[in-house]
Amino acid sequence: MSTPRTPEIPENIVVSSRVRLARNLEGHPFPGWAKKADRIRIMEIVRPAVQLVEGMEEAYSQSMDNLTAIEKQVLVECHLVSREHAAKNVGSAIVINRERTLAVMINEEDHMRMQGIMSGFRLKEVYQLIDQLDTRLSAKLPYAFSPRLGYMTACPTNVGTGMRASAMLHLPALVLLDHINKIVQAVSKLGLAVRGLYGEGTEALGNLFQISNQTTLGEKEDVILDRISKVIAEIVKHEQNARLTLLEKNPRMVYDHIGRAYGILANAQTITSKETMNLLSMLSLGIDFALFDDLTHASVDQLFMDTQPAHLQQNHNNQKLVPEDRDGLRADYIRSRLTSVRRPRFAIPPRKDEKDAH
Amino acid sequence: MSTPRTPEIPENIVVSSRVRLARNLEGHPFPGWAKKADRIRIMEIVRPAVQLVEGMEEAYSQSMDNLTAIEKQVLVECHLVSREHAAKNVGSAIVINRERTLAVMINEEDHMRMQGIMSGFRLKEVYQLIDQLDTRLSAKLPYAFSPRLGYMTACPTNVGTGMRASAMLHLPALVLLDHINKIVQAVSKLGLAVRGLYGEGTEALGNLFQISNQTTLGEKEDVILDRISKVIAEIVKHEQNARLTLLEKNPRMVYDHIGRAYGILANAQTITSKETMNLLSMLSLGIDFALFDDLTHASVDQLFMDTQPAHLQQNHNNQKLVPEDRDGLRADYIRSRLTSVRRPRFAIPPRKDEKDAH
Repeated sequence: MSTPRTPEIPENIVVSSRVRLARNLEGHPFPGWAKKADRIRIMEIVRPAVQLVEGMEEAYSQSMDNLTAIEKQVLVECHLVSREHAAKNVGSAIVINRERTLAVMINEEDHMRMQGIMSGFRLKEVYQLIDQLDTRLSAKLPYAFSPRLGYMTACPTNVGTGMRASAMLHLPALVLLDHINKIVQAVSKLGLAVRGLYGEGTEALGNLFQISNQTTLGEKEDVILDRISKVIAEIVKHEQNARLTLLEKNPRMVYDHIGRAYGILANAQTITSKETMNLLSMLSLGIDFALFDDLTHASVDQLFMDTQPAHLQQNHNNQKLVPEDRDGLRADYIRSRLTSVRRPRFAIPPRKDEKDAH
Repeated sequence: MSTPRTPEIPENIVVSSRVRLARNLEGHPFPGWAKKADRIRIMEIVRPAVQLVEGMEEAYSQSMDNLTAIEKQVLVECHLVSREHAAKNVGSAIVINRERTLAVMINEEDHMRMQGIMSGFRLKEVYQLIDQLDTRLSAKLPYAFSPRLGYMTACPTNVGTGMRASAMLHLPALVLLDHINKIVQAVSKLGLAVRGLYGEGTEALGNLFQISNQTTLGEKEDVILDRISKVIAEIVKHEQNARLTLLEKNPRMVYDHIGRAYGILANAQTITSKETMNLLSMLSLGIDFALFDDLTHASVDQLFMDTQPAHLQQNHNNQKLVPEDRDGLRADYIRSRLTSVRRPRFAIPPRKDEKDAH
């Protein structure tokens, strides 16, 4: 019998870091109160300003009414546009830099919702990036700003810094151990919000949880970033401990989840995106546990993105498909990607009775 | 793209055929009314008579109190002993011929419950076999017999022929199409009973259904056998049609079940016997559909038997294991048996939109 490999817990529990700033022009109604003509005027002021700012010269920019439903949904799946913004049409636009690290939504809830996003645990780096864009834009655009309150925003919950910092965390072990609710409650008490994959009111698919600050008023950006970073580091520790606990106390249970996930993904003929995400989460955990010889996080991340409904349809001649056909296409795609991936190799410690028998 | 193979529907829908006869000695109380000493006396009369009959010379014979719980349960899983008989101890016995086609339970509900069992759809052949044993025994033992009613039995439902003829049917397509309840109702109206894998009051695991006659009084054996054989042939036709319907109307659904079953069995780390049976049923269907290159019905049947709790423990040093350990051992065993079995190969007709695109 081969000796069990000691699995390492790599630092990819924090999938991505994101910071968004809400900004508005002074003297213009907020988008929700603005008439169509107002919104178009605002867009005509903001859009060229964003496109001309240093670093955004080669940005992708589209008016929302120029995008098809599939194109909009692809942007949502990439976390470059909010679900709310995807519903917008004339008078709203999006500007995204080539690296896809910066995105500015024009006339979402505010005149500008600009975000920086990077993979991994890099909140401060992301903040520097978005802060630079903000500083450059503020030189060109007259922001609605109150010396007493800070940045003015359409919704009072954003007044002040207008900043929401968030990280997407992959917490499969806390879910498997059934500790996740305790964590969510503790995080909420610290004034942070826990949300699902697509933000407010969405489900935690694929064991992904978004942690973000709730308050924007009365605290400086670096204080907020410090606090959320510390909480995230704590959650990461909890997830790491949960993984070690699982491996120590019940390796067969966790390996079973990983094995079945692989078996289903490699052989299903029809599969929903929800089931796909949950199973891919298990593959990802399996990679962290060094169980797969020929599977990388990059390939799982790619599968995760490519199997979402809009990506799937975009890669299939941009054709709108009914869910049943999507589920078949998704299964075919996943199988084709996993044909060369050998089944996971587990090293489960012998049962007690087996040890005794030796 | 390879041309879709036209799947053949082979004749293995009838897994096994069985006929049992209930017989009692005249002048002795039925086992349920007999005292221990009576039962022992009956056993001492019946057992040597059975062992000396032609064809039973090399039979396996055991008093039930000589068997361990695992040994008894193995016999139940082999359908050689009823669950009721397995609960018996002193004063009850079992005699089984070497081919395992004939088994006589002594002091079950009746003094003798003798059964013939063969694989496939061979009810009449099985009847000839058990009838021969019965004829030979009747020359040695004074049966309780009424010229008006026929053979006397402990339970009035068996009086007359004392015969129960049954066949075990594998009906996955009728289950997948959700037509099975209609079939069960129709069969019941014809005076036949539909039961699960282990007879009365048991679940239909692995999509296996036992069809048997209800009445034993007022009809000759060959009339009963004729009627049940015709009904079974009808059900087989329905199952065949259901398979063709599935392949024609929704191949992806049925292939999905088969693919997932393979994927789970080949990768699970813990699995109950119930889930195992249901998934093996899908592998079996996949073999019928010619989807597996290196899997045979014989190997699936072997897995089916070997993964049942008592067989599993018997093959594991005869050691009594808690269910959790059994589930792990079962998964390990199944994986080891499937390592060399390549994933099923499906040929799903292209989607309508794909056809249109060509």
